[in-house]
Amino acid sequence: MRFRLIPKEERFFDDFVGMAEQIRVGAGLLQEMVAPDQPIWDKADEIKEVEHKCDFLTHSVIQRLHKTFVTPLDREDIHALARSLDDVIDAIDDSAAVLRLYKIDHVRQEARDQVRVIVACTDQLVSAMKALGKKMEISGCAVEINRLENEADRIHQAALRRLFEEERDPIAIIKWKEILDFLELATDRCEDIANVLEGVVIKHA
Amino acid sequence: MRFRLIPKEERFFDDFVGMAEQIRVGAGLLQEMVAPDQPIWDKADEIKEVEHKCDFLTHSVIQRLHKTFVTPLDREDIHALARSLDDVIDAIDDSAAVLRLYKIDHVRQEARDQVRVIVACTDQLVSAMKALGKKMEISGCAVEINRLENEADRIHQAALRRLFEEERDPIAIIKWKEILDFLELATDRCEDIANVLEGVVIKHA
Amino acid sequence: MRFRLIPKEERFFDDFVGMAEQIRVGAGLLQEMVAPDQPIWDKADEIKEVEHKCDFLTHSVIQRLHKTFVTPLDREDIHALARSLDDVIDAIDDSAAVLRLYKIDHVRQEARDQVRVIVACTDQLVSAMKALGKKMEISGCAVEINRLENEADRIHQAALRRLFEEERDPIAIIKWKEILDFLELATDRCEDIANVLEGVVIKHA
Repeated sequence: MRFRLIPKEERFFDDFVGMAEQIRVGAGLLQEMVAPDQPIWDKADEIKEVEHKCDFLTHSVIQRLHKTFVTPLDREDIHALARSLDDVIDAIDDSAAVLRLYKIDHVRQEARDQVRVIVACTDQLVSAMKALGKKMEISGCAVEINRLENEADRIHQAALRRLFEEERDPIAIIKWKEILDFLELATDRCEDIANVLEGVVIKHA
Repeated sequence: MRFRLIPKEERFFDDFVGMAEQIRVGAGLLQEMVAPDQPIWDKADEIKEVEHKCDFLTHSVIQRLHKTFVTPLDREDIHALARSLDDVIDAIDDSAAVLRLYKIDHVRQEARDQVRVIVACTDQLVSAMKALGKKMEISGCAVEINRLENEADRIHQAALRRLFEEERDPIAIIKWKEILDFLELATDRCEDIANVLEGVVIKHA
Repeated sequence: MRFRLIPKEERFFDDFVGMAEQIRVGAGLLQEMVAPDQPIWDKADEIKEVEHKCDFLTHSVIQRLHKTFVTPLDREDIHALARSLDDVIDAIDDSAAVLRLYKIDHVRQEARDQVRVIVACTDQLVSAMKALGKKMEISGCAVEINRLENEADRIHQAALRRLFEEERDPIAIIKWKEILDFLELATDRCEDIANVLEGVVIKHA
C-alpha cells in the first residue's frame, strides 16, 4: 500500500482548476460561435455540455466540503468560489443559448469584443486557480481581471449606445440588449471571483 | 406544570413547514389566476396577502435564529432556507403582479404550463420541509425539484421561442418576456432550496 | 506616545458612516440630475466618482475584516453591510448612467418621486450607521426604511402602469422600464441593509 501523499482535502484545488479549465473551454467555444458573421448556432449545444460538466464539478466540491473536516481554505470561501465559478459558465451558456434562441444571423462587433475579454478573463481564472493550489501569488490575476472587467464595461456601454442609436427595430433591440447584458454578466462574475480571491490572499498573508 | 417536550429551537422546522405551505397556497392561487383564458386579476391581491404572511414568517425565523443558542441546523443553512423560501413567494407574487399590471387579457399556454410545474415544485417543498423536521429522507424531493426545474427551463425556452416567432407587437413581447422570466425565476429559486437541502443532508449523514 | 483610545477595529463603524455619507451624496447628485425637465447628464460623471470612493471604502472594510482578529460585529454582518452599502451606490450609479446613455431629455415625474424616496432612505442609512457606532437604537431607522421601500414600490408600480398605458414607442418603453427598475433596485437594496441591521440589533440585545 502506498502512502497517500496528497491529503484528500487538497482535491479542492484540483476541482477549482478543473472548473476554471472547463470555463475556459466554454469561453473558447463562444468565441468560435461568434467569429463568423453568422453565429454557429450549434456551438450552443457544445457549451451546454461544458456547463453540465461544471455543474457536476460544483456539486462534487460542495459535497466534499460537507464531508471534509479540515479544509485548506475557509469553508465560506470554498463555497463562494465554487458558486462563482459556476455562475461564470452559466452566463456564457445563457449568452450562447439566446444567440440561437433569437436566431441571430449577424454578430454585432461589440459582442465579439466582449467575448474576447471573457476569454482573457477565463485565462486569468485558470492561472489564478493553479496559483492558489501552489500557494503562489494570485493578486496579479485579480488585478488583471479587474482591469478586464472595466474594459468589458466600456465595450458594453458603447455597444448599448450604438444599438439604441442605430437600430430602429424594437424587437431587435430587445434581443440584442439581452445578449449584450449576458456577456457583460460573464465578466462581472469573473470580477466576483477576483474579489473572493483577494479576500483569501489577505487572510493567508 | 408540564415538561416542554419539544425544545424551543425545533420551532424552526414548524416555521419552514408553515412557509412552504403558504408558498403552496400562493402557487395554487396563481394556477387559479391563469386557468381561464383571461386571467383573474384579483387573485393578485390574494397572492400579495400570502406573500405578506411569508414575510412575517421569514422575519420570525431570523429573529429566532439570532436569539437561539443551539440551532438544529447550521445557522447559515437556516438563514439560507428562510431567505430562499421567501424568494420563491416573491417570484410568484411578482408574476401575478405583472399579469395584472400589464392588463394581460389572454394567457399564453406555456405560462400555464410553467405554473403547473411551479405548483409541483411547491408540493415537493412542503414534503421536504416536513421530512426535514422528522429527520427523514429528503433527497428524493431534491432530485424531483431538480427534474422539475429542467422541465420548467425547457418550457420557458420554448415559450420565448414561440413568443419571438409569432408576436409582432414589441410591447406585447416586453410584457410577456417579463412574465415568462418571473415564472422561470420561481422554479429556479425552488432549485436553490433543493441545493441548500442537499448540503444539509450531506452534513448530517 | 499617546494611548490609542479608539481600538483599531472600531474603524469599521467610521467606514460604514463614511460609506453611508458618500451614498447620501450620490443620491443628492441624482436628485439634482433629475430636478429639471431635461436631466443634467454630466451629473453622471460626478456620481461615478462617488461610486469609485465607495468601492475604495468597501475594499478597505473587507481588507480590515480579514486582518482583524476581534471584530465589533459578527464578520458575516460586517461583510454583508459593506457589500449591501456598495450595492446601493451601484444602483444609483446605474440609474444615472442609463439616463445619460439613453439620452433621456424629459424626466418622468414618477422617476423624480422615486429619487426623492431614495434620498430619504439614504438619510436613514447615515443615521443608522452613526447610531450603530454609538450602540444606540437603530430599529427606528430600519422601520422607516421599510416604510420608504413600500412607498417606492407603490410609485414604481404606478410609474410602470402609466408608462405602458401612455407610451406608444416601444423603444422609449424599453429605456424607461430599465431606468424605473434601477431606481426601484436602489430602495430595495436599502431595505436589504435594514434587514441586516435588524439581525444585528437582535443579536446584541
